[in-house]
Amino acid sequence: MPALPLLAALRAADAGSRREDLIAGLITAILLVPQAMAYAQLAGLPPHAGLIASIVPPVIYALFGSSRTLAVGPVAVAALMVAHALQDYAGDDLSQWSAGAMILAAESGLLLLIMRGLRLGALVHFVSHPVLYGFTSGAAILIIISQVKYLTGLDLPRGSPWETLGPLVSSWQDISGITLLFSGVSIGFLLFARAPLVRLLQGLGMSANAAAMVSRAAPLAVVLVSIVVVGLLAGPARAELHVVGSIASGIPLPNFSGLFGRGWIDLAPSAILVALVGYVESIAVARVLAARRRQKIDADQELTALGLANIGAAVTGAMPVAGGFSRSVVNFEAGARTQLAACVTAFLVGVVTLFFTGVFEPLPQAVLAAIIVVAVAQLIDWQATREVFSYDRGDGMTLVVTLLGVLVLGIEAGLVLGVALAIALHLKRTSVPHIAVLGRVPGTEHFRNVQRHEVECTPGVLIARIDESLYFANIASVEQAVEHALAAAQAQGPVQTLLLVMSAVSSIDASAEEALVHWDESLAARGVTLHLAEVKGPVMDQLESSGFGRSIAPRVHLSTHRALEALRDAPAAGEATPTA
Amino acid sequence: MPALPLLAALRAADAGSRREDLIAGLITAILLVPQAMAYAQLAGLPPHAGLIASIVPPVIYALFGSSRTLAVGPVAVAALMVAHALQDYAGDDLSQWSAGAMILAAESGLLLLIMRGLRLGALVHFVSHPVLYGFTSGAAILIIISQVKYLTGLDLPRGSPWETLGPLVSSWQDISGITLLFSGVSIGFLLFARAPLVRLLQGLGMSANAAAMVSRAAPLAVVLVSIVVVGLLAGPARAELHVVGSIASGIPLPNFSGLFGRGWIDLAPSAILVALVGYVESIAVARVLAARRRQKIDADQELTALGLANIGAAVTGAMPVAGGFSRSVVNFEAGARTQLAACVTAFLVGVVTLFFTGVFEPLPQAVLAAIIVVAVAQLIDWQATREVFSYDRGDGMTLVVTLLGVLVLGIEAGLVLGVALAIALHLKRTSVPHIAVLGRVPGTEHFRNVQRHEVECTPGVLIARIDESLYFANIASVEQAVEHALAAAQAQGPVQTLLLVMSAVSSIDASAEEALVHWDESLAARGVTLHLAEVKGPVMDQLESSGFGRSIAPRVHLSTHRALEALRDAPAAGEATPTA
Repeated sequence: MPALPLLAALRAADAGSRREDLIAGLITAILLVPQAMAYAQLAGLPPHAGLIASIVPPVIYALFGSSRTLAVGPVAVAALMVAHALQDYAGDDLSQWSAGAMILAAESGLLLLIMRGLRLGALVHFVSHPVLYGFTSGAAILIIISQVKYLTGLDLPRGSPWETLGPLVSSWQDISGITLLFSGVSIGFLLFARAPLVRLLQGLGMSANAAAMVSRAAPLAVVLVSIVVVGLLAGPARAELHVVGSIASGIPLPNFSGLFGRGWIDLAPSAILVALVGYVESIAVARVLAARRRQKIDADQELTALGLANIGAAVTGAMPVAGGFSRSVVNFEAGARTQLAACVTAFLVGVVTLFFTGVFEPLPQAVLAAIIVVAVAQLIDWQATREVFSYDRGDGMTLVVTLLGVLVLGIEAGLVLGVALAIALHLKRTSVPHIAVLGRVPGTEHFRNVQRHEVECTPGVLIARIDESLYFANIASVEQAVEHALAAAQAQGPVQTLLLVMSAVSSIDASAEEALVHWDESLAARGVTLHLAEVKGPVMDQLESSGFGRSIAPRVHLSTHRALEALRDAPAAGEATPTA
Repeated sequence: MPALPLLAALRAADAGSRREDLIAGLITAILLVPQAMAYAQLAGLPPHAGLIASIVPPVIYALFGSSRTLAVGPVAVAALMVAHALQDYAGDDLSQWSAGAMILAAESGLLLLIMRGLRLGALVHFVSHPVLYGFTSGAAILIIISQVKYLTGLDLPRGSPWETLGPLVSSWQDISGITLLFSGVSIGFLLFARAPLVRLLQGLGMSANAAAMVSRAAPLAVVLVSIVVVGLLAGPARAELHVVGSIASGIPLPNFSGLFGRGWIDLAPSAILVALVGYVESIAVARVLAARRRQKIDADQELTALGLANIGAAVTGAMPVAGGFSRSVVNFEAGARTQLAACVTAFLVGVVTLFFTGVFEPLPQAVLAAIIVVAVAQLIDWQATREVFSYDRGDGMTLVVTLLGVLVLGIEAGLVLGVALAIALHLKRTSVPHIAVLGRVPGTEHFRNVQRHEVECTPGVLIARIDESLYFANIASVEQAVEHALAAAQAQGPVQTLLLVMSAVSSIDASAEEALVHWDESLAARGVTLHLAEVKGPVMDQLESSGFGRSIAPRVHLSTHRALEALRDAPAAGEATPTA
């Protein structure tokens, strides 16, 4: 992977691919302008912060990222996490909100670069799919709840669902009719503009491509029509409507004064989670899109690219960025071939930010809220939830607990809870490993589970296969299960040898090694000699560094078959072991 | 296991065994009386609390426990944990200390019973051996530091090592000479009374048994001699010496009024750790002793017995109890055969508590501190530390981090840190599983790692064995490693089939299953068909509940050999897969 994948991609592109990139860039920009302002509103920041975050960061990503189609910029879940983090940090001080957002972007960017430096990219795998589904669905519900105040025109407090929905119930009679009208019509039109409008237009003879383009322009259409309608309103209705209001135009030099101070420590836990979630979401989207065109995503390169993009966001005074799901899919389906598309989008958003922000000042906040609600509603993935549940109840429980954790405990605590639960369930699964008693498949050198195959057993020898690496949490359970099998075998006749087949044991930690020593002594005291077969090279190397390894070495055999041959030739029970 | 193992053991015992139990019970009582008062002092409680904890709880344990020789009562590490927990909870209010100790005993006892009910006994295995060593050594050092105030007669504050040792350095000129004399002579004699005295007595012709008995009486001898010497002291030296002072005599009705209130919630985290550590320590000692006589310890029965013993401690107004290491070894080596020995000990301590507590009032606290220091110094296990380090650096690091964590962060945070680190290291180990490319051992149906054996490869087929269960943290790494091997194989010639040998895969979680689906699609898009061999029964059952399982079912083969036979007979590449 070259340091700047963009240049290689651009050199390989032909004129046709460049035209496709230009069109895709335009379509994504039409979607992005209202989304950027909406996500800034979601993060509790001025609309300008979202627009700025859509200019420099995607260009930095285009230069360094390994995905050709990922649309980097403000995203809904990260915006909610920013709002959550800054609520405690900045309170009612709006200048502190902007400074806090810059610190979060800089800190999470640096964390991604540090993860790259320390080769910790694999950490993201600890956010398992069920946790990610539960987290995303929970975050989407929180986002929708957070927008109720804009959709209704009520002055609801920020905070947990209960803190928001309680006042909603008690003050429903104060809902602004005109605001609700804008919300309802916008949501209705945006939902209609998806599949139904595309089908309708195609039914009217429009090509699939053109119909899809019209569908994607729906958010911008809602925005522009709303602005026109607001312009026609007068009197109390106009006054009742909360509009975006004054948007700083141009790309101002950011105020760095807030960047120095306690924020770096206070916001560190949030920055870690913003970095982690942003990276997990980005790489998941990038992988899905790359696989469709048989391209590859380099996880390390993505750390660098997203880290630099976030630092770019901080330096330009914006908010944390990541690869957005819906926008990336739009970019991909609009025909983006290379990172040029993202550069086109960034250029167009830049033009709007420089010259046309005034256009959006009469835009009702209710319309932005409608755009957010319709966008994030897709993140609630019922089908994946059902599939996870039907595949594995434990994973399904993890998904639901993460979702409820996000709703009840908050977005960060919910994520941490989900990750911890997934790890606990995994440990629980591996702490009771499968043990199989083996016998020889007649006439072969193969050994199989006696419960599932017709096999021969050798008198005096119990062969047990351990189906998991041995470590502190499972060694006691392994010992118990094998002792159980041993007692059952001894009930049939004397057993002089216990042969453990270690083909599935990839490591033995210090706790398990120590337990094996005691077990070996305990078996010897009962006249049973412990032998091992099919010990993997690295495991044997490690065992040999201990006294136990040296004492058991003569009782280690290459294969189960050879172990039985050696035992047949060896002296009688209790003396089978050559001295170490 | 019968509900009351004691009765079965007593019925089986003969007269000789009963006499041995009586002697062992007496010897243990001689050691226990000073230890019980010392550990109460360590916990910040009046000496009476330690004596009371040595009467009812061991009898309850004797009734329900599965170990015949475990000596249950106040133990050093639990006492330190009690002191630590109550320092924040009770502050300077001494009545709150007693109430807090009762709550801790009741709560940890209930937790053990709940663990029994929920079959969560296996939780203790998550305290791995390296964590236990590091924790015990760190706790022993903390205990020794906590006794410096009694050894020197200085008025040092309770708290972290720094809070204690800082004032020691600045006020060393205030050290009480007479106190230091008592400390030094006591420690010197107690150390001498171990191996050197035994050797000396045996050299003088005493039998090994008698010499050992004399050695074990050393703590009581130090106590009694000190009391006599204090009686002979007069004037300023006597005034300078801090003595145990008034000890409540008899077995008073405990004051339950403190048992109801916020303590149950405030002390819950500490109670969880007291229960866990007490149980881990007890079962470790019980197992070691039981193995020497080929007896068995029932982990579930131990939960019940220790849970009830702690509730017994709470109800009698004592402190939390557990099975003590040194005292159990003394009991065992003194010849205890059944739980009768523990009942004898409890009876003798009861007699002392009822009638002779006055004897101990002039006992210097420095002498109790000397007994504690000499007892816990054995808990620092340098040899085990060296062995763990030489066996596995990661486990060694865990030990050291746990030890330092206990010293720097405190006993509870250190334990939690150690357990978390052990889990993290285990996950790191399993997150990058071993992958082996296989070939056929010529003339057989065996397949082995191509890097270690002379094997034949089938053109067009890459056989890869995955040596770990697949789950969220390792599926990406598995995919990457196999793709790497695939690219290497494709550099040699076209590959139409990837055959994954799943013999070591015991489970596939939802994240891994989803990744396999995408991987299968991605491989198919590149003209490589995915086949599986040696899929375990439970894994196949689970896979079949998903769409992926149904689509891959025709490509699953019983053995690697049969897979190759099936592939040889199947149509050409890309069409090898029957439709699902």
